[in-house]
Amino acid sequence: MARTRVAIINVTGYVGVDLARILMRHPEVDIACVTGRSAVGQRLSEVFPHLFVSELVIQDGLDVPVDFVFSAMPHKASAEVCEPLVAQGLKVVDASADFRLKNPEEYKAWYQVVHPCPDLLSSAVYGLPELHRNEIGGAKLVANPGCYPTGALLALAPALRLGLVDGDIIIDSKSGVSGAGRSLTLTTHYAECNESVTAYAVTGHRHMPEIRQECRLLSDRVKDLLFLPHLIPMTRGILSACYMRVSDAALQSIGDPGKGIGDAYREFYRSSPFVKVMETPPATKHVWGSNYCHVFPQYDPRTGRLLVLSAIDNLVKGGAGEAVQNMNLMLGLEETCGLDALPVYP
Amino acid sequence: MARTRVAIINVTGYVGVDLARILMRHPEVDIACVTGRSAVGQRLSEVFPHLFVSELVIQDGLDVPVDFVFSAMPHKASAEVCEPLVAQGLKVVDASADFRLKNPEEYKAWYQVVHPCPDLLSSAVYGLPELHRNEIGGAKLVANPGCYPTGALLALAPALRLGLVDGDIIIDSKSGVSGAGRSLTLTTHYAECNESVTAYAVTGHRHMPEIRQECRLLSDRVKDLLFLPHLIPMTRGILSACYMRVSDAALQSIGDPGKGIGDAYREFYRSSPFVKVMETPPATKHVWGSNYCHVFPQYDPRTGRLLVLSAIDNLVKGGAGEAVQNMNLMLGLEETCGLDALPVYP
Amino acid sequence: MARTRVAIINVTGYVGVDLARILMRHPEVDIACVTGRSAVGQRLSEVFPHLFVSELVIQDGLDVPVDFVFSAMPHKASAEVCEPLVAQGLKVVDASADFRLKNPEEYKAWYQVVHPCPDLLSSAVYGLPELHRNEIGGAKLVANPGCYPTGALLALAPALRLGLVDGDIIIDSKSGVSGAGRSLTLTTHYAECNESVTAYAVTGHRHMPEIRQECRLLSDRVKDLLFLPHLIPMTRGILSACYMRVSDAALQSIGDPGKGIGDAYREFYRSSPFVKVMETPPATKHVWGSNYCHVFPQYDPRTGRLLVLSAIDNLVKGGAGEAVQNMNLMLGLEETCGLDALPVYP
Amino acid sequence: MARTRVAIINVTGYVGVDLARILMRHPEVDIACVTGRSAVGQRLSEVFPHLFVSELVIQDGLDVPVDFVFSAMPHKASAEVCEPLVAQGLKVVDASADFRLKNPEEYKAWYQVVHPCPDLLSSAVYGLPELHRNEIGGAKLVANPGCYPTGALLALAPALRLGLVDGDIIIDSKSGVSGAGRSLTLTTHYAECNESVTAYAVTGHRHMPEIRQECRLLSDRVKDLLFLPHLIPMTRGILSACYMRVSDAALQSIGDPGKGIGDAYREFYRSSPFVKVMETPPATKHVWGSNYCHVFPQYDPRTGRLLVLSAIDNLVKGGAGEAVQNMNLMLGLEETCGLDALPVYP
Repeated sequence: MARTRVAIINVTGYVGVDLARILMRHPEVDIACVTGRSAVGQRLSEVFPHLFVSELVIQDGLDVPVDFVFSAMPHKASAEVCEPLVAQGLKVVDASADFRLKNPEEYKAWYQVVHPCPDLLSSAVYGLPELHRNEIGGAKLVANPGCYPTGALLALAPALRLGLVDGDIIIDSKSGVSGAGRSLTLTTHYAECNESVTAYAVTGHRHMPEIRQECRLLSDRVKDLLFLPHLIPMTRGILSACYMRVSDAALQSIGDPGKGIGDAYREFYRSSPFVKVMETPPATKHVWGSNYCHVFPQYDPRTGRLLVLSAIDNLVKGGAGEAVQNMNLMLGLEETCGLDALPVYP
Repeated sequence: MARTRVAIINVTGYVGVDLARILMRHPEVDIACVTGRSAVGQRLSEVFPHLFVSELVIQDGLDVPVDFVFSAMPHKASAEVCEPLVAQGLKVVDASADFRLKNPEEYKAWYQVVHPCPDLLSSAVYGLPELHRNEIGGAKLVANPGCYPTGALLALAPALRLGLVDGDIIIDSKSGVSGAGRSLTLTTHYAECNESVTAYAVTGHRHMPEIRQECRLLSDRVKDLLFLPHLIPMTRGILSACYMRVSDAALQSIGDPGKGIGDAYREFYRSSPFVKVMETPPATKHVWGSNYCHVFPQYDPRTGRLLVLSAIDNLVKGGAGEAVQNMNLMLGLEETCGLDALPVYP
Repeated sequence: MARTRVAIINVTGYVGVDLARILMRHPEVDIACVTGRSAVGQRLSEVFPHLFVSELVIQDGLDVPVDFVFSAMPHKASAEVCEPLVAQGLKVVDASADFRLKNPEEYKAWYQVVHPCPDLLSSAVYGLPELHRNEIGGAKLVANPGCYPTGALLALAPALRLGLVDGDIIIDSKSGVSGAGRSLTLTTHYAECNESVTAYAVTGHRHMPEIRQECRLLSDRVKDLLFLPHLIPMTRGILSACYMRVSDAALQSIGDPGKGIGDAYREFYRSSPFVKVMETPPATKHVWGSNYCHVFPQYDPRTGRLLVLSAIDNLVKGGAGEAVQNMNLMLGLEETCGLDALPVYP
Repeated sequence: MARTRVAIINVTGYVGVDLARILMRHPEVDIACVTGRSAVGQRLSEVFPHLFVSELVIQDGLDVPVDFVFSAMPHKASAEVCEPLVAQGLKVVDASADFRLKNPEEYKAWYQVVHPCPDLLSSAVYGLPELHRNEIGGAKLVANPGCYPTGALLALAPALRLGLVDGDIIIDSKSGVSGAGRSLTLTTHYAECNESVTAYAVTGHRHMPEIRQECRLLSDRVKDLLFLPHLIPMTRGILSACYMRVSDAALQSIGDPGKGIGDAYREFYRSSPFVKVMETPPATKHVWGSNYCHVFPQYDPRTGRLLVLSAIDNLVKGGAGEAVQNMNLMLGLEETCGLDALPVYP
């Protein structure tokens, strides 16, 4: 059987180039084309010496027939690129924010642009496999989740679906600097962010509505949501601390919360090969470079709150790896195909 | 007038050695003696090459007459060292946890030891100058606050005293690794904690009761408190994100919360030379190496919560600098004396 | 055909645990046993959460039949462990220094111990596949090179074998902190080595005689060798700068040195799948987590010196990866088997 | 007596802003004016929150009378700014490269521009106080040395002046990223340079001719010079390893080289308050944030080479601190005035 031919649109950002890294070693697909907004005509291996084994040349557009497309374009531009591809019948994973929010008004409010193709929103599937595995399997267009939403939702989902959460949710996330992308900014200038930690987007981050949308699908008791991201002096990784108030009724139903909540989390992720419910607090280092997510729930009897921590690599499970996981499902491959690299520690 | 002669008990830890650094350039005092639990007989400059200008030799005990003592011993051992010094009439700042908690039962519960001298607890003053400036001025024994409590309380205090807070408080703190001390542990081994972020003490950190004690002095509406510390791959600095629910009544009384809360914070710290209420989110880098604290309050109308961020250098304002600030007050010197070094950026 | 059963002796150090990571995903072998000097009886996944998919339990000794053994014990202890295994006919890769130096007197001089089994030295093969591929293929006992020697020798070897080098060699190497191992020391305590660079072993490092021994096999004109290692605040990676004086005669024979030396290096490594001769200066980041080595020769006409830079991941090509590369050769597998993971960038 | 009024031209780069930090606490001068190429009209404290105590506003030009000027402009632009100021009789320290090289042809060759005012070159003094203290005292225009030359020359100077060096010199320097400035580049983008080490300027760095010029003033036996800079993932600091071949004749004259060379270095720096000859290898951390330089000479009997290591903070002793040290000398103040802050460790 012919191998699947895939393209990466905009390979020159961090998600794009990590897609290239993963797909170059994927046993079932071949990269047929990579495009860039910059560096067109250069070999991929010149721009990214770690991919020196590649012979690919960066193109200014899709110039060969392919079966599957990843778009790593920025929002709005990505929808514009994806729309005709979907119309041609190609399967597409879009790593931008364009097809994540179901409500085009909410999209406009948070991204300050009118959605280029709102008609596609209803058929696009939110690509968090642990929540939407079956729909992804049948989808033509998958919206790859944001990095923060991936970590936060994997921490929150079991508690929400089990009805444990009563009232508000606070999510305090700490991200490595690669999450801010490859474009140059003072914020990501080494001497500015090294040896420093800071919060940002204090009046509201674009990933909040995405987290809230999915939370409300999981539970109708989600009232408000405070999400605060922080920039941490490290390259990769997101650790999210999620604070929830637990419903008294739910609490009584699960017996010993110390054990019951962990068991419920393990049951929830029983068929999810990339999520591991841990018995000790996770460290981002323990998932570095991999598609795994470590989740750790802890009930605090003193305050009646449930704390859930999750750790991911923001560019793999929070980006390129999750996109390949979605591709695997869309192509009917093993979910873990090409994604079983273990975390690189220390 | 004779200059004040000071001693540093246990100079070989990070707070002790940073006391030496600051006091060596203090215009009004002389270091007469430094002691260590290790490295006795070695020159301070051998063990700590950055202090190469010093001629001091590390002693195994206080061997010369002094006027003022800093103890940087671990808890329990510190109280045992301080008790006779206080009895002799020496003024003492204790950097350990021994005289922070007023209730010896609480001390026992969190530190798993019986307090060696509970009789001193009532006269010891909690050394956060911004809250207890006057008492410190008249104190014989000052309990230097923990690093986390310093940052958290400076963020919380104005809101609590103004009655803004209704209900629970969540404090999510991010600390550089020097906060874990100079003793060797796997947790602070470079390859283990670099390029990683993790939460710890998830079932309760010893600094929680200290924060709670002071919060309750500020407001009788403080119910519960969830404090979660994180280890961040940087050497110095603590950023604390404090999440509080705001009382509706209080909110109405202050008019526009966006402006009113900031003004109230500025008024609260009007006479505090080391605390600056910022108009943009603080970064630990902007206080690095200094005794300053940057505080940033932000009301979130979406969730009705008040978010307050604070940034300190954990070894200066959260340790040695605050201890010297306390000494200045106890000796009737200018509060800023010897402490006006600006942060070293970048 | 039955899969090869391998053991890792002392899995709890950084080379040992990285062997486990690589071998767990190796397509042709199974890990049958892991032993430790600590953590015996614990599951590997408890001690190393990044290996959470493993079911292995750390043993105190080799307790099941195996076909192949990796020893990651410290020197001397490693030889003592390897000797009976070799006597039993097992193939062994020793990651310690014990079988690298051919001269037991030199071993004694640099390691301050008498070699436990000098009789094995003559049959042990120095496991740098790019220099000794064929001998390794037939070896029973392979001495895996030190991390510094791997990087330095891959930079030096072509120039030496081509007779380009006249006179002395200076090697200035910069290593990430994981090279110092997992044992706790003040040198590798985070707050001590972060944001700092320092040279060490200024009177002579144990890897010098190993580099010198191999250099002299490559060229009889190697006079002296100055090797200076530095500790760099990063987890993984070694960059070596090698400074050599070029023989005038040799220079004339190769025509344009700018082009000729690069071509000669490329020819030298034509059949070495893990070494890439670059056209721009290498960065350790571009080999991070992989078994690749980037080499960059540059002739400096101003001083008549040849500068060669090389970059490796000290734990992979400089440790566990190279050990697996040796195993592949010893077992008659493809040299790259299980080792084709691309570097993780950024 | 009226305090000296100083200006900082181009305060918005890292040397400019560190000048502001130091001068704001200098006991004998006042900052009367700061100018910028960007951020004009903004308060210094807005752009640089760590200087929140300042009331200065960034101007687009020198708008008030001053007595002394620091220029932190880029090369060429700096000479153009300095020339009229010097003509007006103002004393000037230029932190750019414009007045370092005495030969305008060499300047043109390395900086690819024609020198704007070559007539000033002969009267400008190279501002390394440890070599030119007296001339600086009488100078109107001082060329502040480059960061690398400061560290390298302090390591090399005693050996050169003593006639120890026979033949060539290799300088392998490791710099923190702040040395590359505050302008945005991919090289200094956090995710690109963190966890990586790389050499750059492999065909020749602009600081080489500056080092060579001063070396030749110290010894007529300096033949060639190979200088290779590296970028290290840390914010501040330069460690230089200087490798020199020692003259046999000189060696015999100094007796035991292990002791004699150290003594000679100590004697050379006897009157230099900021240079400390160490007995253990220096670490950049031990001079962090200070104007101190640690130098460590080590004779290697195996190769007959002298290795000298030096550590500085590239922005203080290698930039703003050295500029203030020069100002102190030019104004007849104590050389250490305003510069005695101890290094901030850890």
